[in-house]
Amino acid sequence: MPLTTVSLDPPYLLFMGDVGDDGHAKTGHGIADWASEKCAGQMRLAGCRVDMGVPEMTVEEACAAGVRTAIVGVAPTGGQLPAAWLPSLSDLARAGIHIASGLHSKLSAIPELVEAAAVGGARLIDVRVPPAGIPVGSGRRRSGRRVLTVGTDCAVGKKYTALALHRELRRRRINATFRATGQTGIMIAGQGMPIDAVVADFIAGAAEALSPDNADDHWDVIEGQGSLMHPSYAGVTLGLIHGSQPDAIVLCHDAGRTEILGYEGNFPMPEIGEVIAQALTAARVTNPDCVCVGISVNTSRLDADARNGYLRNLEDEHEIPCVDPIAIGVGRLADALLESIG
Amino acid sequence: MPLTTVSLDPPYLLFMGDVGDDGHAKTGHGIADWASEKCAGQMRLAGCRVDMGVPEMTVEEACAAGVRTAIVGVAPTGGQLPAAWLPSLSDLARAGIHIASGLHSKLSAIPELVEAAAVGGARLIDVRVPPAGIPVGSGRRRSGRRVLTVGTDCAVGKKYTALALHRELRRRRINATFRATGQTGIMIAGQGMPIDAVVADFIAGAAEALSPDNADDHWDVIEGQGSLMHPSYAGVTLGLIHGSQPDAIVLCHDAGRTEILGYEGNFPMPEIGEVIAQALTAARVTNPDCVCVGISVNTSRLDADARNGYLRNLEDEHEIPCVDPIAIGVGRLADALLESIG
Repeated sequence: MPLTTVSLDPPYLLFMGDVGDDGHAKTGHGIADWASEKCAGQMRLAGCRVDMGVPEMTVEEACAAGVRTAIVGVAPTGGQLPAAWLPSLSDLARAGIHIASGLHSKLSAIPELVEAAAVGGARLIDVRVPPAGIPVGSGRRRSGRRVLTVGTDCAVGKKYTALALHRELRRRRINATFRATGQTGIMIAGQGMPIDAVVADFIAGAAEALSPDNADDHWDVIEGQGSLMHPSYAGVTLGLIHGSQPDAIVLCHDAGRTEILGYEGNFPMPEIGEVIAQALTAARVTNPDCVCVGISVNTSRLDADARNGYLRNLEDEHEIPCVDPIAIGVGRLADALLESIG
Repeated sequence: MPLTTVSLDPPYLLFMGDVGDDGHAKTGHGIADWASEKCAGQMRLAGCRVDMGVPEMTVEEACAAGVRTAIVGVAPTGGQLPAAWLPSLSDLARAGIHIASGLHSKLSAIPELVEAAAVGGARLIDVRVPPAGIPVGSGRRRSGRRVLTVGTDCAVGKKYTALALHRELRRRRINATFRATGQTGIMIAGQGMPIDAVVADFIAGAAEALSPDNADDHWDVIEGQGSLMHPSYAGVTLGLIHGSQPDAIVLCHDAGRTEILGYEGNFPMPEIGEVIAQALTAARVTNPDCVCVGISVNTSRLDADARNGYLRNLEDEHEIPCVDPIAIGVGRLADALLESIG
């Protein structure tokens, strides 16, 4: 039996607290954008100045609408859950609605919430906490097909590209599943594996559990993490590559970045070609046939002319489709994926 | 202030339980071989058929000899502490002697031991449990020098080679510290970091904490883990390489092995030159000057003629000293290390 990964029951209520700006509401926006069909409504406290574009709901209205899970769609500075939010979250839990959070502070460590959840029979789901019983990686080849996004750095569009590619495959009526490896991705997908929170020995095993055996024509589109050249997080990246045993990778990059984000002064951005080469070398440990089918670049800091020139040059150099997933879309990545793997 | 790593107070009493053969007593033998100056005695229960070559002691004798820590020097099949050992371990703890174990089952989860330790004011030290508060890696260059053993696989002599190299450097009156990353190494050194038990995001940070800033002429000799090509554990290896920011690596290999241990059928042993190349590429992310100074090979399955031929061929191919650390010793590795780094 496959390992149970973190899992959320829809429909969702997006709990936005009293957050003041969209910069702290990225999780809520991500869910509203990518999983709108699961979002029944939102709950905002006095002072909240963001809008997820779904109906405002009280606890009673959420119950009437059949909401199963309230998701904290906000990342407050510091990662702690503000005390002012507790009465509302406790009311939801007492009404039997599960509460899910990706914050550093654990819901399960807040006695008031634990008691309310016990009364209502609700679950408190900390999506940063990996499931118990993850095995070490086996390296065994699994059935089905897999594509993994890899990056030149953190925050270069690995999640966005995977979500967009998954959406494009589904649009083409291809059997595909988005496999989330980070907290926001897990909230969007409703399930996944918080790969960076797993104990080091089990990274590859966790990645294997996340994308189990599947139908021969099924694609897992796996959200990448970190970068093989990242001074802090490369271990997560390598274990994820090995455990995913991808048939294909898509390289993600930010055209405007010259240094590793947050490590300025010592770590220049690596060359795209070098990252592709290293990622393929790593991937071929567990899947000798892995290929890189395209490059997905955030060009938001370039104007249209500069973007087109940049992508054309990149494509000349690497001879695979190079796109901006927002400005241009990932259609050509999907084409290349389906052509090269068949 | 540097992070406190796992730490054991000498002198030690080697607790061998009722173990029947040396195969299950490797930890005890390792401590007796490499940290004999810290071993005051041993305690063996009825039926025990191994001998660590140090005085047999009762609880009272251990107290009189000033023993600070009793180390479980045995790895019973299954990794659980046998119930028959508990009365003796409890007596030791009640007498104020700390108990240290590297077993999968936690000492701190055994109520009888916890109670005895509270009575005696003893610590229960599970060396597989990493310290709290490990930061993410910073990539900041640290003062002092570092050499890390890397391998073509698990169990190819990375710990042995590091210990032997450390001993050789100390024999030459060079300022050096063995930095342990696995349970047996930690028991031998009396301190260290169980790197494979750290949460994935913190592997590099844990390695950084293990080998902090030091005197310019001081060498940290760091015990490697796993292999970059290992289908289960490569994430640990990569994070350890990045966080160690080694000036030099020593490649470790087993001449008799044709496939990754425990993964036979799918994972042939990688080429030594390829492993060196990948390890240097990884190491140069955080230390652009890293070099490979030698190769350490377990040739125990070869006779003397075959060994000499094997090492000569390897040395011709890679143009760095190639030794068997047991049959030949690591003197030439130390020479190369000191020559190349100065």
